[in-house]
Amino acid sequence: MDIETLSEKILTGDRRALSRAITLIESSRADHRDQAVQLIERLKDAQRQAIRVGLSGTPGVGKSTFIESFGKMLTGQGLRVAVLAVDPSSARSGGSILGDKTRMEELSRDPNAFIRPSPAQSHLGGVARRTREAVTVCEAAGFDVVLIETVGVGQSETVVAEMSDLFILLIAPAGGDELQGVKRGIMEIADIILINKADGDLKPAATRTCSDYAGALRLLRKRPQDPADFPKAMMVSALERDGLQKAWDEMTALTNWRRENGHFDARREAQARYWFQQEVRQGLMAQLDTPEARARMQDFAERVAAGDITPTVAAQELLQGLRG
Amino acid sequence: MDIETLSEKILTGDRRALSRAITLIESSRADHRDQAVQLIERLKDAQRQAIRVGLSGTPGVGKSTFIESFGKMLTGQGLRVAVLAVDPSSARSGGSILGDKTRMEELSRDPNAFIRPSPAQSHLGGVARRTREAVTVCEAAGFDVVLIETVGVGQSETVVAEMSDLFILLIAPAGGDELQGVKRGIMEIADIILINKADGDLKPAATRTCSDYAGALRLLRKRPQDPADFPKAMMVSALERDGLQKAWDEMTALTNWRRENGHFDARREAQARYWFQQEVRQGLMAQLDTPEARARMQDFAERVAAGDITPTVAAQELLQGLRG
Repeated sequence: MDIETLSEKILTGDRRALSRAITLIESSRADHRDQAVQLIERLKDAQRQAIRVGLSGTPGVGKSTFIESFGKMLTGQGLRVAVLAVDPSSARSGGSILGDKTRMEELSRDPNAFIRPSPAQSHLGGVARRTREAVTVCEAAGFDVVLIETVGVGQSETVVAEMSDLFILLIAPAGGDELQGVKRGIMEIADIILINKADGDLKPAATRTCSDYAGALRLLRKRPQDPADFPKAMMVSALERDGLQKAWDEMTALTNWRRENGHFDARREAQARYWFQQEVRQGLMAQLDTPEARARMQDFAERVAAGDITPTVAAQELLQGLRG
Repeated sequence: MDIETLSEKILTGDRRALSRAITLIESSRADHRDQAVQLIERLKDAQRQAIRVGLSGTPGVGKSTFIESFGKMLTGQGLRVAVLAVDPSSARSGGSILGDKTRMEELSRDPNAFIRPSPAQSHLGGVARRTREAVTVCEAAGFDVVLIETVGVGQSETVVAEMSDLFILLIAPAGGDELQGVKRGIMEIADIILINKADGDLKPAATRTCSDYAGALRLLRKRPQDPADFPKAMMVSALERDGLQKAWDEMTALTNWRRENGHFDARREAQARYWFQQEVRQGLMAQLDTPEARARMQDFAERVAAGDITPTVAAQELLQGLRG
């Protein structure tokens, strides 16, 4: 299928064309990469926008159940939902989050939902680019909501936040010291913290945890792009499908507020600049990612470690070699 | 003065030659850079080694007083002490830590001490390279101890730890919640945590803080390069010059242990590799640091923000322009 046909099919919402496009995006073959770039360039002109929702939570907080329940609720309202993932560990484990669609059995069979596992990649940078491009293809295919899931590991939250319109942190109820476990950096990028499992025995703990987080959020510096009552903490039960509509109402309210105040577009523009700079950096670094360059790096590193040459001179000679 | 003469003078411990060499290292002029590289290449062959002690502490913990007291104690024992600084804020503030030698009045007049403020630089990377090179010049000039000071801001501790044989964190006595304020990452790179101001009214608080840190350090994973009782927390009073000898005894004991077990050399080798890789990265990134490249970056960034071009295509075109 040529790129023009593929592009037209995506614009009609064809799911097989969408899958195919993402496979093209994930390929590391140079000709595929060229086609993917052409495709995205073409789809850009459709100017369709979904709400991009970043979602982070450590294993065990019930992320899959949340996505299943939340996704079903949205499709039940006639919305089309795409679920993508950024998984920094997939390269190491060989597996990937969302790899097993049985985790979201109902949603994966829903004609208004599209679930795609995280691409297996060696670099978080590579995963980031491919997920970001997949988001734009999903938007062109007419999805209303794109959920971008990640586990709370290392820099993956920052990566997801930089491609999301709003960022949701999913938390499990816990004991009094739990707050310490959440990195301040994540609190600062979260728009809504959802305390999941607010059901059965865990309800009292969830209530306490929610109140702890609400208190902690009040201590953070206010962000000019937020209405006065954001960021906020709320309770949900993905299992009992409770509180999900309220969470969605808050998400749309925040999004509408930002649209009306110009922050929505400003954020997307800032993100585009950020990704451009990242692409430039990665493009420069890619010069080191050839077998020859790696061998030369290794060789110089040994001589540097042995004290035969200073780091500065070794780097100069290596870079001259790359250019010449 | 030619580089050969300068080099010879440095090897005799000539302080004016040392100052001159560091000025050369800090210069951004291309001919100075070439001379600095030649000089370091030449001095390397002397193979002199100081103990490089990284020292971090936020403003108010009494860092200057500590360096003054600790440095005077060492020079009193016939040791020669150099004090350098890595200050990530110097570019912004225009000033620099150690900029005012009156902060260490006695030590700065000591013929066996050499104090050099942090170079004013726009990038932490640039400060890092220059400080690292200044360390090697101080070693060649026969200093026994090189103290590398930094404030606890951002990545500067990592930078200092990567050029130190051991890393000391200076802390002030505080209330019960104080532990939360210290980033886990810094705890993990500290070999010795010194609770300063263990004198007068603050003695009880210092004792409590010391015990808190000792407990927290026991929870960290043991490091294979450490004897069983490291990392450790200790109390000192820089003001009353109390506990300083004990702290120095621990530093030399740790250093000797690492030397005997091969960890000292292994760490320096790993650091040399690290700095080589950093130099290569910075060298590649330097291509973006010309007026032309910045103007082109700016231009593409505007087009990307406006949605006229995707980040990927913009980066490709920019990089082609840099190469062509």
